[in-house]
Amino acid sequence: MRRSSEPSGIAMSDIVRELLAALGAEAVLSGGAVEDRHAADWSGLDPARPLAVVKPRSTAEVATALRLCHARGQTVVPQGGLTGLAGGATPRARDIAVALERLRGIEEIDADAATMTVLAGTPLEEAQRAAEAAGFYLALDLGARGSCQVGGNVATNAGGNRVIRYGMAREQVLGLEAVLADGTVLDCRNKMLKNNAGYDLKQLFIGSEGTLGIVTRVVLRLHPRPRGRATAFAAAPGYAAVVALLRRAQGALGGVSAFEALWPDFYRFVTDHPDTKSKPLPDGSPFYLLIEHLGFDPAADAARFEALLAEALAAGEIADAVIAQSDGQAREFWVVREGLAIDTLPGLINFDVSLPIGAIGDFAERCGQALRARWPTAHVFFYGHIGDSNLHISVAATFGPGESIHDVDDIVYGEVRARGGSISAEHGIGRLKRDYLGHCRAPAELALMQALKAALDPRGILNPGKVL
Amino acid sequence: MRRSSEPSGIAMSDIVRELLAALGAEAVLSGGAVEDRHAADWSGLDPARPLAVVKPRSTAEVATALRLCHARGQTVVPQGGLTGLAGGATPRARDIAVALERLRGIEEIDADAATMTVLAGTPLEEAQRAAEAAGFYLALDLGARGSCQVGGNVATNAGGNRVIRYGMAREQVLGLEAVLADGTVLDCRNKMLKNNAGYDLKQLFIGSEGTLGIVTRVVLRLHPRPRGRATAFAAAPGYAAVVALLRRAQGALGGVSAFEALWPDFYRFVTDHPDTKSKPLPDGSPFYLLIEHLGFDPAADAARFEALLAEALAAGEIADAVIAQSDGQAREFWVVREGLAIDTLPGLINFDVSLPIGAIGDFAERCGQALRARWPTAHVFFYGHIGDSNLHISVAATFGPGESIHDVDDIVYGEVRARGGSISAEHGIGRLKRDYLGHCRAPAELALMQALKAALDPRGILNPGKVL
Repeated sequence: MRRSSEPSGIAMSDIVRELLAALGAEAVLSGGAVEDRHAADWSGLDPARPLAVVKPRSTAEVATALRLCHARGQTVVPQGGLTGLAGGATPRARDIAVALERLRGIEEIDADAATMTVLAGTPLEEAQRAAEAAGFYLALDLGARGSCQVGGNVATNAGGNRVIRYGMAREQVLGLEAVLADGTVLDCRNKMLKNNAGYDLKQLFIGSEGTLGIVTRVVLRLHPRPRGRATAFAAAPGYAAVVALLRRAQGALGGVSAFEALWPDFYRFVTDHPDTKSKPLPDGSPFYLLIEHLGFDPAADAARFEALLAEALAAGEIADAVIAQSDGQAREFWVVREGLAIDTLPGLINFDVSLPIGAIGDFAERCGQALRARWPTAHVFFYGHIGDSNLHISVAATFGPGESIHDVDDIVYGEVRARGGSISAEHGIGRLKRDYLGHCRAPAELALMQALKAALDPRGILNPGKVL
Repeated sequence: MRRSSEPSGIAMSDIVRELLAALGAEAVLSGGAVEDRHAADWSGLDPARPLAVVKPRSTAEVATALRLCHARGQTVVPQGGLTGLAGGATPRARDIAVALERLRGIEEIDADAATMTVLAGTPLEEAQRAAEAAGFYLALDLGARGSCQVGGNVATNAGGNRVIRYGMAREQVLGLEAVLADGTVLDCRNKMLKNNAGYDLKQLFIGSEGTLGIVTRVVLRLHPRPRGRATAFAAAPGYAAVVALLRRAQGALGGVSAFEALWPDFYRFVTDHPDTKSKPLPDGSPFYLLIEHLGFDPAADAARFEALLAEALAAGEIADAVIAQSDGQAREFWVVREGLAIDTLPGLINFDVSLPIGAIGDFAERCGQALRARWPTAHVFFYGHIGDSNLHISVAATFGPGESIHDVDDIVYGEVRARGGSISAEHGIGRLKRDYLGHCRAPAELALMQALKAALDPRGILNPGKVL
C-alpha cells in the first residue's frame, strides 16, 4: 500500500499504518511529512529522519503508540525540545520518534502544597513564568529554557545555573506519570515532600534519558520566590583560593545560588570578542569567579555580601572584585560566564565533566597540558559550575591525519577516570558518550543498569543505543 | 553436629556452619549467643530470635555472608540501630540477621567537596558531631539520632525535623556502596553534586528498606553550618490560617527549617502531663504551631522573624505567639511538639501519613470524627510536620470483642486513600503496613516494584515479607 503524499519508492510500513489507524493522520507524520528538526538534537550528531513522528495529544495516545510499537518490536525515540547535547533524542532511520510537544500546558498549581503539575511537552520557561505568576519560584533554570521541555529536563535530570542551592531536576520532581515500554501507564504523581510508601519508582525515569519509559506528566516542587539577588565578579590568585572562597561564601551567606569559575584563556577570549561587550576585570588573573546569592532580606543581604568580599580580599582569596549595581550589569557578568563567543570557533568540541571539587584545579592543569602538548595551536578552555563540581571544557584543535575527536576524548576522559570523576555532569550519556561510560562506572554498575533495562524494557524498544 | 554453647536440642544448620567457617565465631552468633535486641525493632511487632546474627567487620564480610546465603536461598534481614517503627528490621526465626554495627566510623571528611564518607553502622549522632567538628552541618536529624545508624537512615529514607529545608535522607546522599543479594559489591560512591553518567543506581537502595541490597558505606552531602536559630510557638484560629502562615513564613524568611502543627487535644494532653513541664500558650486554640528558622545573619534574621509574626497577627493568621528567648526555651517548645507524654497511654497506636498540605485539615477533622464515633472514649491525637505534608496520628482506644488495630487502620487509611495521600510519610512500610500498600500505590506500581525485586533479588533472600 502506498499513499500519494509519500516520497515515491518508500512503502509505508505496517507499524506506521497501525499507528495511523489508531491515532489519525494529525498525530502520525511519515515520509516527507516528517520535519527536518526531528532528525537530530542540538548535538547535530548523525542526523536521520525517523520512519515516522508520532505527536500524541494525551497520555492515552502515548500508551497506544507504545503498545503498538511494543507488539511489533518497533524501536521508539522520545523527543522533547531537542536541545540535548549528547544525541539522546536523535533517531535512526528505522526508529519512530514520539514527540511530546502537544502534551503542553500547566494542569494545576496547588498553592497550599506549593506544587505545579505540568504536561511533559511544556517548555521550561512557560512553567517558570506560571510559577512566578502564582507567587512561587521554579528553581530549575538553564540556557535552553525557551526551547527545552520539562519532560526532557526530567528525562535527562537537567542541571543548570542554580544547582548548588536547589539541586538538579531530580530534586524538583515530587511525582510524575510515565508510560512503560509496553504501554502501561504508571501514575506516580505525588504532592508530598515525604512519601516512603514502597519503592520510589519515579527515580527510575529521572536521568535515564527515555530508555526506561516516557515521562508524560510531572509534579514539580515550588520554592518561595527570592526577594533579592547579589552578583559579583572576582579575580582569584589560584585554585586553592577559589575553593576557600566557595566555603567562606557558603558559610557566611547560606544561600549561594551560583559559584562559577572561568580560567584565564577562556576569560580573555570571551571578553576580547566583540559579541561580549564587557570585561568586568582586567586580564592577567589565574581565575575569574561569578558569585550569586539569592536572598530574602535585600538590604541586610547586600551588606553581608559586601562584607564577605572584603573579608576574602583581606584573606588573599581574591585580588579584586566588582559587585553588579543593576540587573543589567549582573546579566553582563552572566554573558561573560556563558561565553557564547567561543561557539564561533570552528570544530569546537565541548565536554561536561564533574570531579570532586578539590580535584578540579589539578585536573584542568594536567588536562590542559596534555591537550596543548598534542595540539600546540589548539584553543583549550576551562569554565563551569565549580560550586556544583561541574567543569566544562571546550577544545578547538586542527587534527592531523588519522586523528579525530576520539583522541581528545581519550585524553580528557582518561584524566577524569584517574580522579574518580564523571564523564557527564549534566548533559547525560546519550549516544555521544556511551563508549566511555566504563570510564566512570564499574562493571557491576553497568551490569545492574542492563538488568534494569531488561526488566523494564525487555524488547529493547525504548531509545535503543542510548546510555547503554 | 552440635556445639556445647548451643541450647540443647537445637542442631546448628548448614548455613550457620558455613558462615562460621568463613567469618569466624566472633562475627557469627547463633543459638543462645543471639542477644534479645536482635529479635525486633522499636515497633516491638512479632519479635523472633533469628537463626543467627552475623556482624561483619568489612564490606567484604557482608559480601561473603550474602554470597553464602544466596547460594542456599537463606533469607537475610539487615539490621541497623533497630529504631524503625514498621517492623522492617524484625526477623523471623528462620532468618539470619546481618547487623551492621561493627561497620562503624567516619572514613573521610572532604572539606573541599563538602562531603563525608561514613560506614553504614555509624550512629547518626556520631556523624552529626563529626560534621560539626569539621565546620559543617549534617542536615539529617531525628529523635532516634543517638541509636539509629546512617545505613538504616538511608535504607529507610529517614525524614525527621528539617525536611522542609534540607530534604529527606535521600537528598543528603551523594553516593553509596551496597552489597547485592548474590554478594556483588556495588560501588556507587560519588562526591559530585552533578553526575548524569548512566542510571542513578543509588536511588534503588534509598528507601527500599533492605529489600534490594545492603548499604555498607554512604557519601553524605554536608551543608554550611547555620549561624543562628529563631523558634516561635504560636496559636492559630483554623487550618486555612495555618497554611497561609506557612507560605507567608517561607516567602518572608526563605530558610524555614521546621513548621509543625499540634491539634488542641494533643496540646492539652501533653502540656497537662507532669513530664512536659511547660505550656507555652493557654489552652483553647484550634491549632498550635512550632516554627523554626535557621539563618546566617542572627540579628537581621531575628528582626525579620519578629516582623513576620507581627504581620501574621495583623492578618489574623495567628492569635498569639511567643518567641524563644534561649536555646532552653526552644528546647521546651520541641518537648511539647515531640509529645513523648502520650507514650504513657496504654495500647497507643501511631500512624505516620502524608497528604497534600491543603487536605490535612479536612482529613484530621473527618478522621477524628470517624474514630471518635466508633470509640467514643478514645484518645485521638493529631500533630506533625505540616510543612512537610506529614501528619502523625495517635490513637488509644479500648477495643470491644472482635475489634482490633486493623479497624483503626481501615478508618485512617481509608481517609488517606480518599485524598491521594500516602500511608507512610517517613517510617516506611516494613511488615506493619504491607497489607495497606495498595491504598496509596496503583497495581501498575506494585507490579513494577515486584519486577525490580525480581531483577535484583531473584531468590528473594533480602528482607523477605517486608514492603512487598
